[in-house]
Amino acid sequence: MSWDKAGCEKAVAKARSYGMDFLEIALLDPPSVDAAHSRKVLEAADMRAVCSLGLPKAVWPSHNPDGAVDFLTVALDQCAAIGAEALSGVVYGGIGERSGQPPTQTELDNVADALTRAARHARTLGLLFGIEPVNRYETHLLNTAEQSVSMLNRIGAENMFVHLDTYHMNIEEKGIAQGIITARDHLRYIHLSESDRGTPGAGTIQWDEIFAVLRAIEFTGGLAMESFINMPPEIAVGLSVWRPVASGEAEVMENGLPFLRNKARQYGLI
Amino acid sequence: MSWDKAGCEKAVAKARSYGMDFLEIALLDPPSVDAAHSRKVLEAADMRAVCSLGLPKAVWPSHNPDGAVDFLTVALDQCAAIGAEALSGVVYGGIGERSGQPPTQTELDNVADALTRAARHARTLGLLFGIEPVNRYETHLLNTAEQSVSMLNRIGAENMFVHLDTYHMNIEEKGIAQGIITARDHLRYIHLSESDRGTPGAGTIQWDEIFAVLRAIEFTGGLAMESFINMPPEIAVGLSVWRPVASGEAEVMENGLPFLRNKARQYGLI
Amino acid sequence: MSWDKAGCEKAVAKARSYGMDFLEIALLDPPSVDAAHSRKVLEAADMRAVCSLGLPKAVWPSHNPDGAVDFLTVALDQCAAIGAEALSGVVYGGIGERSGQPPTQTELDNVADALTRAARHARTLGLLFGIEPVNRYETHLLNTAEQSVSMLNRIGAENMFVHLDTYHMNIEEKGIAQGIITARDHLRYIHLSESDRGTPGAGTIQWDEIFAVLRAIEFTGGLAMESFINMPPEIAVGLSVWRPVASGEAEVMENGLPFLRNKARQYGLI
Amino acid sequence: MSWDKAGCEKAVAKARSYGMDFLEIALLDPPSVDAAHSRKVLEAADMRAVCSLGLPKAVWPSHNPDGAVDFLTVALDQCAAIGAEALSGVVYGGIGERSGQPPTQTELDNVADALTRAARHARTLGLLFGIEPVNRYETHLLNTAEQSVSMLNRIGAENMFVHLDTYHMNIEEKGIAQGIITARDHLRYIHLSESDRGTPGAGTIQWDEIFAVLRAIEFTGGLAMESFINMPPEIAVGLSVWRPVASGEAEVMENGLPFLRNKARQYGLI
Repeated sequence: MSWDKAGCEKAVAKARSYGMDFLEIALLDPPSVDAAHSRKVLEAADMRAVCSLGLPKAVWPSHNPDGAVDFLTVALDQCAAIGAEALSGVVYGGIGERSGQPPTQTELDNVADALTRAARHARTLGLLFGIEPVNRYETHLLNTAEQSVSMLNRIGAENMFVHLDTYHMNIEEKGIAQGIITARDHLRYIHLSESDRGTPGAGTIQWDEIFAVLRAIEFTGGLAMESFINMPPEIAVGLSVWRPVASGEAEVMENGLPFLRNKARQYGLI
Repeated sequence: MSWDKAGCEKAVAKARSYGMDFLEIALLDPPSVDAAHSRKVLEAADMRAVCSLGLPKAVWPSHNPDGAVDFLTVALDQCAAIGAEALSGVVYGGIGERSGQPPTQTELDNVADALTRAARHARTLGLLFGIEPVNRYETHLLNTAEQSVSMLNRIGAENMFVHLDTYHMNIEEKGIAQGIITARDHLRYIHLSESDRGTPGAGTIQWDEIFAVLRAIEFTGGLAMESFINMPPEIAVGLSVWRPVASGEAEVMENGLPFLRNKARQYGLI
Repeated sequence: MSWDKAGCEKAVAKARSYGMDFLEIALLDPPSVDAAHSRKVLEAADMRAVCSLGLPKAVWPSHNPDGAVDFLTVALDQCAAIGAEALSGVVYGGIGERSGQPPTQTELDNVADALTRAARHARTLGLLFGIEPVNRYETHLLNTAEQSVSMLNRIGAENMFVHLDTYHMNIEEKGIAQGIITARDHLRYIHLSESDRGTPGAGTIQWDEIFAVLRAIEFTGGLAMESFINMPPEIAVGLSVWRPVASGEAEVMENGLPFLRNKARQYGLI
Repeated sequence: MSWDKAGCEKAVAKARSYGMDFLEIALLDPPSVDAAHSRKVLEAADMRAVCSLGLPKAVWPSHNPDGAVDFLTVALDQCAAIGAEALSGVVYGGIGERSGQPPTQTELDNVADALTRAARHARTLGLLFGIEPVNRYETHLLNTAEQSVSMLNRIGAENMFVHLDTYHMNIEEKGIAQGIITARDHLRYIHLSESDRGTPGAGTIQWDEIFAVLRAIEFTGGLAMESFINMPPEIAVGLSVWRPVASGEAEVMENGLPFLRNKARQYGLI
């Protein structure tokens, strides 16, 4: 949803009504967010937050690391002002960034450079900074947990982490839970997203495997249900969602959320 | 692989050596194929064939149905000359065709028009003509079995069929085998492709579910293992494969093929 | 639960409160049931019923077919008086009947003889008559769908059917849904039971595979959730349940039942 | 197979021919084994070994702890003489021991007493000593990993471990891999056994989940394929195997073994 004042208030109220203790804010246009308002609404509801984003083409780190750092600096400042704990997502590029080739050394060098500088700024703000590998169609840069861990190891910033998403892992990993095992020491956040981005529990994701491995690595990070419904057209397009993937919010919240919670309980994660 | 004379001979020899009884020929550039040569090589090896393709942008059916029919007519003629039994694949568009919007009525009308005319030509040649729904990133036109069955019902051509692919179903269907159930009366061909397009059996596809449902619908069509390794760069790019998804041909043929054959036997399909 | 007057009233009220449209009555001691009372309570609630049982040792069909027929005749008469539609379960023997050897020809002949005669009586009452294969520890006679179909084919009674149970299939079948495929033409009733007989959705059963194949065979028979909680000790022992397999009725009804209903809806079965 | 001289030689040769590096010896009658011969054959083949057993009724630890200790002492001595590394299995009772009630405190006290003393003897011999929970039909004493860990914690012997078996976990655990997570600190040995005890890969076990969790807990213990074919009738009966669960040794070794090895490689366990 769009994160203007009304959107913020509605989202926080809804998240609270469903018993959630944090939510993820899509920072589509960081400067436009009224951070002080968001902070007040979140604090009033005792709701924690994580911000996420992908960068616009003009400031893709692979080609414009300086521009990327400027963009990420503003985003991180807003994150801190909102009172969020982390900025994460496709912070290393754009959603849909694909050169038509495997990543070049120069692209990866530029990404590492931009992320190093942004991570340093995040640290001064007391923020965590995450990277989310996404599937081959949404980026050519980081598709797997292994590639993301390599990038983190190269950068060596203690406040950086890997953010995984079951929807993407379902396409990229050799076994749905392999990404979790690979990223284990760096994993602090996971999107629990169904194979079609619809209602969790109604697709092809092997949830038992996901939750069992999360338990086995003694995961204590954030578990975020993600589903793409009720999107404004400009976002639906960015995500290549051409049809409704669930009948509506009720299906996701009344079927999907209890499904995930029961599984999380079964495996002792909540 | 490229289907020039050497490529054809090598592919047929290999398919034979692995005990396959048919293979799929990627008709990337239909006029360039030496159909008489292909037919001779296939017949000598007693090997059946299916041809597949996606259309180049200039003749995408959604916008240029006449151009598409001309292109498909040549492709079907080549198919017949080769001695193949069917033309299938993304014959309703291009791989990667995305308008950034859900399909419009005009686009679907144009597709239906082009396919109707092409199916008629296929029938005069005694050929079957299939449509393969692919995932949301590769087309915005037909992503699911349900959409494909609707298109077939609209056209009403008896020689048309649905061609499914487990890789795409894993992203689009509500349950990996739902596409098979939905398309059951129209399903004559299926790509058995792993979730990352690598080695079958080493990804997230629930193969038991696939094979059990194929058995349950009494499927008697073609079972084609599909894996994308050793591709020329121009194809790898079209398919968004940015890294090796298997260690090589040996892994696919020595691990993946026996895996699929054992499962097919377990469920009485071969 | 025990099916005395109070038990009957409580069970019917509960089933109704959870929106069920039929229930299964365990006919542990057929003559003791007040059939007229049961019928009245069921009719008042517009609730359909199926009866099930296993035979006491003295009248195991394998060794005492005449005694078995007498026992089954009474049970069928009670079934009809209750207004149930079918008698099913381990009607071919006792739960826990194991000779320590594979079934002998004489045992199978005796079983076939007793079932043939009982099926004939069932037909005169307008009742269906089912056999439920159970796992190797509960009988040595019929463990698989295939063995059960063979028995039905041998008997050739039109009112007989196969009654499957996912708990047992999980131990005996080569693929959880194979039993459904094998028994398809004879399958009219299925127990949806978790791998530990606890809360459906919280064990190892691959429910998508079960529901997908039920849909694929166009199953229209009865879907019965089965879970063993709150049992009197004498039944718990017969079923080898030595510990609670769910935290209580609430867990089964509030987690398990919605889980099964959502899956059944996802696959178009309800 | 029976472990007389000829059986030992044949088993070791076969295990070697399939590239195995250890095997499990069923110590059905410990005193009858020619340990010196076994040791020589094992050493010549550079083959490691683990011994396993269940106790005869007369010396069930639950009722005759002194008799059990005597029996286990001889078994452990033979184990050491053979050069095996561990004694494991249903060392806490008999296969098929069921009182018809949940375990009583006295039974558990007796078991703990016998195991404590046997573990002490094992330690003097430098042997590990394992307990294998088995399903509800084979014992009423220890069905789950959790119960087994409780028993180990009660005893507190450093040379004791939990030995799991996927066949039993498939019936008892709330999620196939839960037992592995629960027993993680005590798990040194696992039987990779299919749901019907037939060919691994051709049943209902979710192998990806098993291997992923083994990887996640950084398991370094023994991985033993187990399948019950070609058994002498007296053992088949003890295990309630009334029909062939695989077409023969070839199916298990040529389909099942490569299947497990490929999965173990996929998850970095071998």
